Amino acid sequence: MKRLLIAAACAALLTALPAQAADLATTAAALRDKALTDPTAWDVLESLTTEVGARPVGSPAMTRAKDWSVETFKRLGFANVKVESFETSAWSRGAESASVISPWPQPLHILGLGGSSPTPPGGLEAQIAVFSTYADLLAQPVGSLTGKIAVVTQPMTRTQDGSGYGGVNAQRTYGAVEAAKRGAVAYLVRSLSTDDTRLPHTGGAAPAGIPSAALSTVDAELLDRMAARGKPVKVRLEMASSFNPKAQAWNISGEIVGREKPDEVLVIGGHLDSWDVGTGAVDDAAGVAIMTGAAKVIAGLPKGPRRTIRVVMFGSEEQGGSGTAYAAAHKDEIGKVVLVGESDSGAGAIWSADLPKGSRATPQMVAFAKAVAPLKVIISRTDGRSGGADVGPMVRLGAPVVDLRQDASRYFDLHHSQDDTLDKVDPKALAQNVAVWTAFLYTVADSDIDFRKLATEAK
Amino acid sequence: MKRLLIAAACAALLTALPAQAADLATTAAALRDKALTDPTAWDVLESLTTEVGARPVGSPAMTRAKDWSVETFKRLGFANVKVESFETSAWSRGAESASVISPWPQPLHILGLGGSSPTPPGGLEAQIAVFSTYADLLAQPVGSLTGKIAVVTQPMTRTQDGSGYGGVNAQRTYGAVEAAKRGAVAYLVRSLSTDDTRLPHTGGAAPAGIPSAALSTVDAELLDRMAARGKPVKVRLEMASSFNPKAQAWNISGEIVGREKPDEVLVIGGHLDSWDVGTGAVDDAAGVAIMTGAAKVIAGLPKGPRRTIRVVMFGSEEQGGSGTAYAAAHKDEIGKVVLVGESDSGAGAIWSADLPKGSRATPQMVAFAKAVAPLKVIISRTDGRSGGADVGPMVRLGAPVVDLRQDASRYFDLHHSQDDTLDKVDPKALAQNVAVWTAFLYTVADSDIDFRKLATEAK
Repeated sequence: MKRLLIAAACAALLTALPAQAADLATTAAALRDKALTDPTAWDVLESLTTEVGARPVGSPAMTRAKDWSVETFKRLGFANVKVESFETSAWSRGAESASVISPWPQPLHILGLGGSSPTPPGGLEAQIAVFSTYADLLAQPVGSLTGKIAVVTQPMTRTQDGSGYGGVNAQRTYGAVEAAKRGAVAYLVRSLSTDDTRLPHTGGAAPAGIPSAALSTVDAELLDRMAARGKPVKVRLEMASSFNPKAQAWNISGEIVGREKPDEVLVIGGHLDSWDVGTGAVDDAAGVAIMTGAAKVIAGLPKGPRRTIRVVMFGSEEQGGSGTAYAAAHKDEIGKVVLVGESDSGAGAIWSADLPKGSRATPQMVAFAKAVAPLKVIISRTDGRSGGADVGPMVRLGAPVVDLRQDASRYFDLHHSQDDTLDKVDPKALAQNVAVWTAFLYTVADSDIDFRKLATEAK
Repeated sequence: MKRLLIAAACAALLTALPAQAADLATTAAALRDKALTDPTAWDVLESLTTEVGARPVGSPAMTRAKDWSVETFKRLGFANVKVESFETSAWSRGAESASVISPWPQPLHILGLGGSSPTPPGGLEAQIAVFSTYADLLAQPVGSLTGKIAVVTQPMTRTQDGSGYGGVNAQRTYGAVEAAKRGAVAYLVRSLSTDDTRLPHTGGAAPAGIPSAALSTVDAELLDRMAARGKPVKVRLEMASSFNPKAQAWNISGEIVGREKPDEVLVIGGHLDSWDVGTGAVDDAAGVAIMTGAAKVIAGLPKGPRRTIRVVMFGSEEQGGSGTAYAAAHKDEIGKVVLVGESDSGAGAIWSADLPKGSRATPQMVAFAKAVAPLKVIISRTDGRSGGADVGPMVRLGAPVVDLRQDASRYFDLHHSQDDTLDKVDPKALAQNVAVWTAFLYTVADSDIDFRKLATEAK
């Protein structure tokens, strides 16, 4: 019975596709299969992580990454390779150390948060106040933490859709501000991590005027156990950092130029910069590699797509600025931007597609859905919304957006830590990403689908 | 059919047990169940890792560990608590760093091996020669590595019985000696690790007169990829360390005194010292906790065992010396040592028992086998042999030995690394260890089984 229903559904799908869409579906399926074995994405990912490594904005490595980027686009045959310069702020880590000094001396493994203040030279020593939830910290009256190091040890939930990160993000981003308001001299937070290694996970934090750092999950639990013993625990912290309010940064792009409507552009990308630990493999060399690989597969067609596909390697996602800079520089062409999309959730397989508003039932999107069903991608009931930090500003200017959602189950084991390295990437899952983006981009770039119109009609 | 066979086998087992052994079996089973919920082992493990942490021989932390040990034995009601002092050599880590300096500058994550020489002050820089197997290094002619840093990147196999460690141990222990023979100025080896974190795993190495360090598995793979690119790769290494040939160390013991034959002694233990990274949770606070917990459960009987159970916390396993010192100090009582045993493979469940030679078919050991079958322990066809580094010297003096083999599948993810911490221990597996040791120790301590006689008869 079940089989009959599926067969009927398939038949309905096939017969429902008009001629242009049927062509799209056939080519999309062929490109999908080509993408599954195309080596470009892996090669790009391996090259960036091996030959450049970590590339925080404002660092010499970031300058090397920019050069690598230009070279890579040219080597792969992209047209109109452009380096667009902008200024942004850059926080840089100095030497950092932490330890319990009494009653049970032990080292603590920390990473300063981007935006943290340094400690006074020579460090600081203070008693800790441990809160097992962020809500507990927020419940403290102003002044109650005077002279203390506030510590929040709330753990993160592992989820497929990455929502566990949103659930605890505030404790990293705003915890230091809240602790400082209450008189704390420093702030330590359990890493936003789903793993149990002793490597802390860094990330951005709102400036609070006090030093703030992430503890490894192991060290957060150690402080939990010490706190439970009821004696005052004293911690020593020494952190250096520097801050450049006007660091130079770059958005680098390359194009597969449309054969019929070159001025209609799909703007897609990932970010080139990374935190200073790890090699930024899943965050976000993977995104850069997936998008570059997908565009390259489409470029390999004997007859290129009608519209232009532009891949952007954004130059300052982690510390902010590249999305805003890109949107500002391209606001005049925004009406010609057919679609924006971003890959910035690692290298886990895509499991769900949030398509642009009102487009789900179009022959083109039905063709896409058909091409990626064998790759285990479902079409969600939710419309594409933000795209991500780098394309978000273009979305706010009116660009249509797709969100292809990746399985984030393991992403936060690695994210912003020394463990963000090439060996963690599953080549099969990476190839699946390339295949899904290839099918999607081709379906949009070689058709005349108008997402703006569809969105207006859907209102 | 299968069920019938099992039922028949069980019936045969039960009817085969004479009266004394049947009593042993009943009490062993009751103790086993008590041990499964007894909190002692976990409490000991948590206390040592939280209140002391890492405790390398020769360090202030090791002195604190010795005091903790005495206090713990006394608090738990052990009799004849003894601190036996001895001297041994102690290598201590100083500041360490490594990086690729050309053609692709990147930091490398290393841990010096115990016994390594320091680099000259200011460090050293040299081209690397990468070998993907240890055999490749050994195949190089003398003089061929002059001025180079030799690197061996052979990976380790994950195994249940821990044999993957033996398979690659030589590359850590003797690699630097072999590299130095061939002219190398330093030696880097892929960590003996089954995990993929960026934390290196340290360990002992034979003195080679050159600096030697373990690379994280991630960094070993990074060097593999750089080497594959065919350009000369230059690495910078800076390592400090100190060496004390006469460090003070201690073996600490406590007893459950036998009610009938107090001079007949079961000597069991784990080691109190650890490497300087992590908190020595699975290596070997777990062993200390398991043995202390098992003896404590037996001490809780209304009528204690006939023979004495002595738990020893050995004071220098990682850098050597505690086993030899203990055997030397106790050689005169060796004839009265009924059995020795050691727990030093982490906190994975015991899955197989290598019993003392010739004892498998005795009513006492059949009683033991029966008590632990529900805990998924099989009796192996192999006799107990070495016991481990700390009881081994007593075995060589003639003491009978048991090897209760733990599942080592995850042990080498953690071993000798910063990741060796309490949160990695599964409380259920820890309790299973305590239950199996409790059943075994009771069966031996409350019987008159004579392993020496059985071994002689078995010849």
